[in-house]
Amino acid sequence: MKYVFKNAMILTMNNGDILKSCDVFVENGVISALGSLNTEQLQGAKIIDASGKLMMPGLINGHCHVPMTLLRNYADDMNLQTWLFDHIFPVEERLQGEDIYYGSLLGIMEMIASGTTCFIDMYDHMNELAQAVEESGIRAQLSRGMINTGDGPDFSADARLNETIDFYKRWNGAANGRITGAFAPHAIYTCSPAYINAILEEAQKYGAPIHVHLDETLVEHEDCLKKYGKTPTEHLYDLGVFGQKTVAAHCVWITEEDIKILADNKVTMTHNPSSNLKLASGIAPIPNALKMGVNVALGTDGASSNNNLNMFEEINLAALIHKGVNQDPLLINAMEALKMATVNGATALGMDNLGVIKVGAKADIILIDMDKPHLMPVHNVVSALAYSVQGSDVCLTMVDGEILYDNGEFKTIDREKVSFGIKKCYERLF
Amino acid sequence: MKYVFKNAMILTMNNGDILKSCDVFVENGVISALGSLNTEQLQGAKIIDASGKLMMPGLINGHCHVPMTLLRNYADDMNLQTWLFDHIFPVEERLQGEDIYYGSLLGIMEMIASGTTCFIDMYDHMNELAQAVEESGIRAQLSRGMINTGDGPDFSADARLNETIDFYKRWNGAANGRITGAFAPHAIYTCSPAYINAILEEAQKYGAPIHVHLDETLVEHEDCLKKYGKTPTEHLYDLGVFGQKTVAAHCVWITEEDIKILADNKVTMTHNPSSNLKLASGIAPIPNALKMGVNVALGTDGASSNNNLNMFEEINLAALIHKGVNQDPLLINAMEALKMATVNGATALGMDNLGVIKVGAKADIILIDMDKPHLMPVHNVVSALAYSVQGSDVCLTMVDGEILYDNGEFKTIDREKVSFGIKKCYERLF
Repeated sequence: MKYVFKNAMILTMNNGDILKSCDVFVENGVISALGSLNTEQLQGAKIIDASGKLMMPGLINGHCHVPMTLLRNYADDMNLQTWLFDHIFPVEERLQGEDIYYGSLLGIMEMIASGTTCFIDMYDHMNELAQAVEESGIRAQLSRGMINTGDGPDFSADARLNETIDFYKRWNGAANGRITGAFAPHAIYTCSPAYINAILEEAQKYGAPIHVHLDETLVEHEDCLKKYGKTPTEHLYDLGVFGQKTVAAHCVWITEEDIKILADNKVTMTHNPSSNLKLASGIAPIPNALKMGVNVALGTDGASSNNNLNMFEEINLAALIHKGVNQDPLLINAMEALKMATVNGATALGMDNLGVIKVGAKADIILIDMDKPHLMPVHNVVSALAYSVQGSDVCLTMVDGEILYDNGEFKTIDREKVSFGIKKCYERLF
Repeated sequence: MKYVFKNAMILTMNNGDILKSCDVFVENGVISALGSLNTEQLQGAKIIDASGKLMMPGLINGHCHVPMTLLRNYADDMNLQTWLFDHIFPVEERLQGEDIYYGSLLGIMEMIASGTTCFIDMYDHMNELAQAVEESGIRAQLSRGMINTGDGPDFSADARLNETIDFYKRWNGAANGRITGAFAPHAIYTCSPAYINAILEEAQKYGAPIHVHLDETLVEHEDCLKKYGKTPTEHLYDLGVFGQKTVAAHCVWITEEDIKILADNKVTMTHNPSSNLKLASGIAPIPNALKMGVNVALGTDGASSNNNLNMFEEINLAALIHKGVNQDPLLINAMEALKMATVNGATALGMDNLGVIKVGAKADIILIDMDKPHLMPVHNVVSALAYSVQGSDVCLTMVDGEILYDNGEFKTIDREKVSFGIKKCYERLF
């Protein structure tokens, strides 16, 4: 299908350029022309009137566990250990493929309804997660989270690595390239060095990127110092992990030295402000990381520690908290926060044709309805997007040149089927 | 008009009670019955099907400058002094009654569309602001912000106090009691002690409450220590201000001693987390204030330092930031954050029949549409409201027994007229 968006105002995320009254031609999943199109070019294309709408690249959620929508609002306002060991883990033990499938579709509905067109995810039962991604039309980098129990032989850990390899072979590049794979050692406190080495060896064999949790809590940081005599970042660096393209989630407790390592090795940090606040992990040193050249993407984390998958909330938080905590109103301006949710996410994926509106870029596009009381008057669209816009202002979401969401309607997902499926899973699980 | 909400799930905010499949009878602006109503009772009432909806008391915005919607996204990401003196004040100088009227209607639209049914406001051109409140049907406590320029005679300061008195006489108790008045010495750094005394004397004469900014920035705090040898809170206390019922906005830099003074004098603090973060003022010691018995309400502040008037965002922030900053996941749980936005706001106004769903309470009610991907599954409605709900999930807003907003439709405000009015003001002002 060919599409032409007529008369859009566009925040391109390309050097901060804002285009006014611009037409956008989409063909074969790609933005093929920008500007004022003539009638010949419009032939055979579906015309979308974008007047009064703001167009921008779809948001990229840099760290998520999408099936955890099933645990949304299930366990809150408690200590991390109680939350994890008494509530989250026991339910996760019971999760089956069906739960992952419906939980993922639910999360994907939420994401496309609030402007997210791509997400980086780590979980379990990955075939069902990938099936949900394939069917829904969203874009994702997926990885099976791997843990082992100690330094000795651990057959289930071996099985997880084999699952990862099988998954990567089956799904990397699938769905017209919308799905890519990664290898995910869960974290330094759940993977022994030997296991990380084994994972790394296979990742190198396949040229696969790495997705890992890093330095999320003070406990992780201090335990690592005790056990290995180095920070979690130094530990992963010494194991050679950063030789692969790496996305490291959280990085709340990283030191100045760690930031240098991450910058030098082109590791992407994902900032997950809601989750880090809610679980009381702390506040990541994002202003310093950006200043020192780290690529910082933005993520929601899972819905059980957020408790939604709304990237506009994360953009808003990212632009607010560092100012307040450091008492400096110049930290993380609106454009920097928007970059974290778009181009920086694309950089995390190694894609320079994503997270941006330009000729040749993937047609991952959202439209925002500006005719809302809370968006008037329009002084500055960049400020509006970071400080005023709600996820619910998104009125159209396109991925890979196909419309997935249009004014409240899901085009690729059967809303009733997902509601019914979620109810069924809920009744069995809880 | 009589209304019956059929079959609602209700978060009453009355001792945390949650009622299921409950009918709510509204008559003469008041909730007159709760439970299962018989057909006789339903006669002559308009029936509203509330199945699948969550009912709760309307939100109370404890500190706002509603006409500042006109300056939304006008000046961001800059130092406080540049923001205030180079951008905000010069525009405010030019504001006329018409701007206040349309700016207020715009902000009121935003508030009722996101679940706010009452707000506490301080600004200028108050007759036009009150007119907007009267026409729109929302509830508000209004005050003219007063400043003076020094310790000597200041005729414009006298004029402001006379305006306040005139406004109070004209509007306090107006619109079926929806509008009340207050006296608002702007802040200790903009009002001399003599001026505060003059204001206080008049407030006492009329039995009027006080609305004041207090200890918002470190500069205010330190300047006050230098100038008066006491904290801003001690300064106001010594002037006798707290003898009147007082709402003190911000209180970011208050000390443990100050908290004691506020608690002992039943002063309401309003917590404005977005504004305090965005202007880099800091983070108010809310957990401690609550622990020590202060009534803490929640507010958005003006749209130019937020940049919207969405109380669900403030609820979410209030429940998140204190956990993260203090690394304690038990601080400000979901229910505490919701209280700040409802019953605590009612306490600020001295109304025990507001901010709660019970027989005899004012019918200030909102319905939330729970049939949204980001609200599924429903494990815990209290958590859902604090951590997942968006302002846009509000599908019906009632104030004083009248429906002001119903599924995107404004019942008392002409949306087109406001859009047109805002455009006209915008073109003249900028």
